[in-house]
Amino acid sequence: MARFFKKREEARGQSPGELIFIGEQKVANIQCQRIDYNASHVNEFNIHDIKDLSIPPDEMLSWININGLHDTSAIKEIGHLFGIHPLALEDIVNTGQRPKMEEFDASVFIVIKMIRFDMDNKMMVNEQLSIIMGENFVLTFQERPGDVFNPVRERIRRQKGRIRNSGSDYLAYALMDTVVDNYIHIVERLGEKIEDLEEDILNSPDSGVMEKISSFKREINYLRKSIRPAREAMAQITKLENGMISHGAIPFFKDLTDLITHVTEAIDTYRDLLTDQLSIYNSVVSNRMNDIMKILTMFSSIFIPLTFITGIYGTNFDYLPELNYRYSYFILWGVIIFIASSLTLFFKRKGWF
Amino acid sequence: MARFFKKREEARGQSPGELIFIGEQKVANIQCQRIDYNASHVNEFNIHDIKDLSIPPDEMLSWININGLHDTSAIKEIGHLFGIHPLALEDIVNTGQRPKMEEFDASVFIVIKMIRFDMDNKMMVNEQLSIIMGENFVLTFQERPGDVFNPVRERIRRQKGRIRNSGSDYLAYALMDTVVDNYIHIVERLGEKIEDLEEDILNSPDSGVMEKISSFKREINYLRKSIRPAREAMAQITKLENGMISHGAIPFFKDLTDLITHVTEAIDTYRDLLTDQLSIYNSVVSNRMNDIMKILTMFSSIFIPLTFITGIYGTNFDYLPELNYRYSYFILWGVIIFIASSLTLFFKRKGWF
Amino acid sequence: MARFFKKREEARGQSPGELIFIGEQKVANIQCQRIDYNASHVNEFNIHDIKDLSIPPDEMLSWININGLHDTSAIKEIGHLFGIHPLALEDIVNTGQRPKMEEFDASVFIVIKMIRFDMDNKMMVNEQLSIIMGENFVLTFQERPGDVFNPVRERIRRQKGRIRNSGSDYLAYALMDTVVDNYIHIVERLGEKIEDLEEDILNSPDSGVMEKISSFKREINYLRKSIRPAREAMAQITKLENGMISHGAIPFFKDLTDLITHVTEAIDTYRDLLTDQLSIYNSVVSNRMNDIMKILTMFSSIFIPLTFITGIYGTNFDYLPELNYRYSYFILWGVIIFIASSLTLFFKRKGWF
Amino acid sequence: MARFFKKREEARGQSPGELIFIGEQKVANIQCQRIDYNASHVNEFNIHDIKDLSIPPDEMLSWININGLHDTSAIKEIGHLFGIHPLALEDIVNTGQRPKMEEFDASVFIVIKMIRFDMDNKMMVNEQLSIIMGENFVLTFQERPGDVFNPVRERIRRQKGRIRNSGSDYLAYALMDTVVDNYIHIVERLGEKIEDLEEDILNSPDSGVMEKISSFKREINYLRKSIRPAREAMAQITKLENGMISHGAIPFFKDLTDLITHVTEAIDTYRDLLTDQLSIYNSVVSNRMNDIMKILTMFSSIFIPLTFITGIYGTNFDYLPELNYRYSYFILWGVIIFIASSLTLFFKRKGWF
Amino acid sequence: MARFFKKREEARGQSPGELIFIGEQKVANIQCQRIDYNASHVNEFNIHDIKDLSIPPDEMLSWININGLHDTSAIKEIGHLFGIHPLALEDIVNTGQRPKMEEFDASVFIVIKMIRFDMDNKMMVNEQLSIIMGENFVLTFQERPGDVFNPVRERIRRQKGRIRNSGSDYLAYALMDTVVDNYIHIVERLGEKIEDLEEDILNSPDSGVMEKISSFKREINYLRKSIRPAREAMAQITKLENGMISHGAIPFFKDLTDLITHVTEAIDTYRDLLTDQLSIYNSVVSNRMNDIMKILTMFSSIFIPLTFITGIYGTNFDYLPELNYRYSYFILWGVIIFIASSLTLFFKRKGWF
Repeated sequence: MARFFKKREEARGQSPGELIFIGEQKVANIQCQRIDYNASHVNEFNIHDIKDLSIPPDEMLSWININGLHDTSAIKEIGHLFGIHPLALEDIVNTGQRPKMEEFDASVFIVIKMIRFDMDNKMMVNEQLSIIMGENFVLTFQERPGDVFNPVRERIRRQKGRIRNSGSDYLAYALMDTVVDNYIHIVERLGEKIEDLEEDILNSPDSGVMEKISSFKREINYLRKSIRPAREAMAQITKLENGMISHGAIPFFKDLTDLITHVTEAIDTYRDLLTDQLSIYNSVVSNRMNDIMKILTMFSSIFIPLTFITGIYGTNFDYLPELNYRYSYFILWGVIIFIASSLTLFFKRKGWF
Repeated sequence: MARFFKKREEARGQSPGELIFIGEQKVANIQCQRIDYNASHVNEFNIHDIKDLSIPPDEMLSWININGLHDTSAIKEIGHLFGIHPLALEDIVNTGQRPKMEEFDASVFIVIKMIRFDMDNKMMVNEQLSIIMGENFVLTFQERPGDVFNPVRERIRRQKGRIRNSGSDYLAYALMDTVVDNYIHIVERLGEKIEDLEEDILNSPDSGVMEKISSFKREINYLRKSIRPAREAMAQITKLENGMISHGAIPFFKDLTDLITHVTEAIDTYRDLLTDQLSIYNSVVSNRMNDIMKILTMFSSIFIPLTFITGIYGTNFDYLPELNYRYSYFILWGVIIFIASSLTLFFKRKGWF
Repeated sequence: MARFFKKREEARGQSPGELIFIGEQKVANIQCQRIDYNASHVNEFNIHDIKDLSIPPDEMLSWININGLHDTSAIKEIGHLFGIHPLALEDIVNTGQRPKMEEFDASVFIVIKMIRFDMDNKMMVNEQLSIIMGENFVLTFQERPGDVFNPVRERIRRQKGRIRNSGSDYLAYALMDTVVDNYIHIVERLGEKIEDLEEDILNSPDSGVMEKISSFKREINYLRKSIRPAREAMAQITKLENGMISHGAIPFFKDLTDLITHVTEAIDTYRDLLTDQLSIYNSVVSNRMNDIMKILTMFSSIFIPLTFITGIYGTNFDYLPELNYRYSYFILWGVIIFIASSLTLFFKRKGWF
Repeated sequence: MARFFKKREEARGQSPGELIFIGEQKVANIQCQRIDYNASHVNEFNIHDIKDLSIPPDEMLSWININGLHDTSAIKEIGHLFGIHPLALEDIVNTGQRPKMEEFDASVFIVIKMIRFDMDNKMMVNEQLSIIMGENFVLTFQERPGDVFNPVRERIRRQKGRIRNSGSDYLAYALMDTVVDNYIHIVERLGEKIEDLEEDILNSPDSGVMEKISSFKREINYLRKSIRPAREAMAQITKLENGMISHGAIPFFKDLTDLITHVTEAIDTYRDLLTDQLSIYNSVVSNRMNDIMKILTMFSSIFIPLTFITGIYGTNFDYLPELNYRYSYFILWGVIIFIASSLTLFFKRKGWF
Repeated sequence: MARFFKKREEARGQSPGELIFIGEQKVANIQCQRIDYNASHVNEFNIHDIKDLSIPPDEMLSWININGLHDTSAIKEIGHLFGIHPLALEDIVNTGQRPKMEEFDASVFIVIKMIRFDMDNKMMVNEQLSIIMGENFVLTFQERPGDVFNPVRERIRRQKGRIRNSGSDYLAYALMDTVVDNYIHIVERLGEKIEDLEEDILNSPDSGVMEKISSFKREINYLRKSIRPAREAMAQITKLENGMISHGAIPFFKDLTDLITHVTEAIDTYRDLLTDQLSIYNSVVSNRMNDIMKILTMFSSIFIPLTFITGIYGTNFDYLPELNYRYSYFILWGVIIFIASSLTLFFKRKGWF
């Protein structure tokens, strides 16, 4: 089950500047892919030793993607190389962060959650993506390999769209746009399942429905918690005044803010829908109960009095005049039929069947 | 069933500048109607080839209405002709946008939902209307033919109202006012149905009522989602400072904002009303249950003890003194009537009938 | 039943400048009462033909009250005479407006709801009151004759209070103060009924209670919708900077804002109270159900086993040893009494009675 | 029962400047205590005739406490003497005001509710306290004698704390601080009762619990309505810029604002707690119902089939082979015991007991 | 049970400047630890007599930690020595404060709750921590010995992190960071228990579950009340303009604000989760009820009619033709089996088993 907090136990009381990796170790070694590009050139590297990492050349824009955060000394080295604030470094390795944006002198630090549906394992994967956006570089830190950025890589390689002609702000935008596109995809999938639940509720309200409602509620709350704070972070980016975001890139970040707003509204709508569905489910169950009780009451109310009557004439009194009368038995049947009909009519009048 | 998101699946990870039509193809070819007018002249055209489209003449105001968005290359051409920002173009063809207002250098871009009741198919139709308002033109993009704008067309043709003497801001206002009038109409219709439900709930609370509540809830949530963000967008228009909205037009847009506020308040009121109705429905069902249980309890409580008594005298013991007593049977009846009356009185005292 | 929207059907798609009366025609002819006054003089007129209406004399303050809005051409004439903005005129005749305040160059336009209890017909009457406050005149538009303003008229006639020495702002305040006093009266009446309901709920929770809750909920929502937006409108008046509201009048309008805030808080409190009452009603019903079920269960659980025992000895087996034993019958009674007592004790221990 | 509004009936439509006492007459005559003091002297007076009241001497600070508000002409005289705005006077006698702060040229007018627990009558007393704070005087208006101010009087007399060396702002603070201390006391008392309810709910959920919940809800709502607006009023005082509040007194008023915030948060917490308790009470009741139904179902399901079997062999058919078989009766018992054990086992497996 | 308010009874009506310890006396004598340090030196003292306390030397930073608040005269002396505002002193000893931040001329006063899990007594401990941050000193006041600050002490002693090279702002941050880390730990523990409850609800919804829900609700509300206001206080610190917080320390306090936001969001999520769990628990209980009723209804509906039939042939009428027919008994069984099968089929069709 998804826990709200990542275990921070070990980090409690540590010096705020200390780097302690919080999370499970998800990759054997730190992996580092680097793409340097400008309008005319693209160079890709796989860097195996963090020591080989260098400041990007002046006339190029460098995207450095790091997978795996457990090797805190390597992270520290990268931080030193690119002049990352210690608090940002701490947040990168402590992967239980709330999505946020922080402004430093020559860089912007962004934490968002990368949520994707892992087709192989049929499960939702949620990991922390930390982005450091500098003048001519973008660093991305992931907990493990496997991400949603291949379309961006393709665009850089194939010189598609405006990405090759834009700065680090646009690259950061393109990466986050891809992440947000995946939010939509995930919420869409879940939303469809929730909407489909409605029919089940009205037609076959068994306890499986309730388990589904309960599990969808948990999932939607989990998504909400992961995505919602990102809206505020994104909105802050559009208001940055440290010159890191060029004038032309602002509309793109605004668009992204709109998109996240859209997603969070969708999440809220689905939350409300689930609450409504639970209410309706309860009403359906109550209605069923009524139907069950009606059947019980009809059977009991008709046959219990009749049984009583037969009981009367089943007694063994020596002197019971009706017993000797020849037509008693038939009269008994008459009385029985009369009582049964009257009660049936009574229930029909009440609209019970 | 109305889905919250339009399928964006294909668009995931695409370059933000790429135009990909999201939605079902609702019209064979792009259709384009153009009305050029000023205080003294009106010219209407049906343009079959987008290449025939040209910048409107200086001294005239041009309303160009485009139906059908699947031909993205045509949309791109229009965008190029009128200098539309690529993000706006993307939002036009990606019809799952949240209503919004965006300000560009020489134009205002507005996305709202056009909701109308299609009398022929007896269904609510909800499509995205994108409006680009320039100095002397207004572009409107719809997903398919059939809209709510005929009254505006008539007013232009017949020189009714102030429309012929006003600028593009007033034309945009007139179009959106017509859209919002339809919101009122739609919400009014639904509201009446919801208000009428009340009587059903109190009188015949069968499960059909619950299905109606559930379906109205879905509809009202759907409307809320489509209409609500438009209020913010409209309010932003009144605060625009790029000179696109003339001083004289501001009160009209303020009025429009008020109208949308009114509609969203109505929607919220109906939402609350539905929630109240579900509560009351549940209470009614509980009450019914009580009534059913009272009947069952009265019948059972009266006749089960009586049956027991007859059972006693139905036993075949050799020595059972009462059996030989002459008046036993009549005493039995006396006892039965006494017990039945006492219990009846007891239930009457409890106020059960 | 009170509908949220007044029918605007006919007005859909009409030019925003067109005047179309929306509402039922509530008065045969437009009636117009005019009171011109200053510190020393009071002149009252009944004007039968709108053409006789003229601009008020310079040194006097004129209150012109118009009853009946169906004669849109007359309204138009008045609008022309006093220089009223076309949008304000439209809002005056379209009586389904949300309470609001609008500022024009030389006038303030206020829409509020005049709610009063019509003693003759024992019903709540809710109509739109539109107020145009100019330099030296106040226009009030009502849908029909009969209003709450007689105390104000008296004060003008008898020179009571400060009204004769103050300007149009104070007159407008005095009128609205009277309207708000009636809000308090109406909410007070409804509130008392709601508070009295509590006793019914705890003592005799029949279905009538639920109908009352449901009807009060509707009434309170209706009042909320009518009154609430007026608070905002009133607060805006105190912030007007066009010189229409004199410095000395501001405290009065602030006081009015406080009063409306008080009313809306009362309304919200009663809404919450109704919701609480429904919850408590449901609990009471559940409790009753428990009591009913206890009775059923006690009767059934005691007598069904006993009946079974008598059934045993009612069988006609040839060989059933107990039947021939002399004291069987008395032992049977012993067993019956023992079982009945044990079960009674069991239920007593469970605290069922 | 506490009504939300005090009866304003008589005041409806009256001139806003008119003084009409709204409330019950709670004291025979207006009583007036006056304490004049400075760092070195304290003089106390009981003034029996309002005409004897005079402006406080220059070098002293005067606290004048008036009990009883029904003698509006006396109040008017006081108002005239101290230059109180007519609207403030009106609010003083109209005791159904919402707590508020109003700033006038040379005075601050504060309305708060004085809530105290009257030990003699074992009831909560809630009356309006109006405070007029001038340069060198503080007027307090109460509806009746008996207040919470004795500790303040003592401090003035005994020269305790800083009160003797401070201005009217500190005196006003000291008075309100005492009032707010009583809020805490009252909320604390109620809160303890609410918290103690929890045990009752889980252990003996009879209908008395529900009545308590209902009555606490009403009380807490009543307190909320009385106290909540005071927070806003107090916060406004700290922002006053008319020089009435000295720089050194600001922290005290801020502290007071914090305290009221604390109280209102406590009230909200208790409200939520009561709502939770009602939910839990309902769950407990549902659980009980389940237990009751289980007992009924177990008894019925075991004995009804058995009774049927005995019924079979109680029939009087001439030819019923089992009757003549010697061991039938014992086999019957075997079958009965088998059925009863199987069903018991079945219910045990379902975890019913 | 945790009460919302600490007993302030004794303090009611006291002079605001008076120091009255509110709380239970938790330590015999006031204990005072002092650490003076700079980049090169660390001196630790245990001060037994408050009189030995002195202003810290100029070139050093002094952290003075005081345990025990009942000796108000000692606290007063400390306040005098360090120039603490009387209101701050009052708040220090009155331990029922709401978390807050207050700015004084040369110091910042912070109240937060120190919540920790006491491993020895297996209970949550919540005490008030008051922090006074001056130019070159930090005072911390705790109610009793035992705190969460050992890691900070270690860092000072071992010169770990930046603490030895930073000012009083960083020390205050480090202390509060440790407190907040403990919030996370506590909320995490509770959250895990809450999340684990889910399984219990779906599988074994006995009344123990409800007691747990109820107790977790209380705990979470208690945490919320203690932690939530701290967020606002922390956010205010980052906006302080009195030069007490150095530019370099701002990011640390921002980080702290984020962390508290994260914790309060977690608390809100768990609150919602508990509410959802109670809803689901209720649904589960309703479902169980349905199952119970189905069993009862099936048994009753099948056997009650059959018993009636046997009753008919158990009557002792002289003339009852079927009794003499040879195959009656077998036909009876046929009828019984037919009825039983039909009803079973009927219930099967209804999907009851």
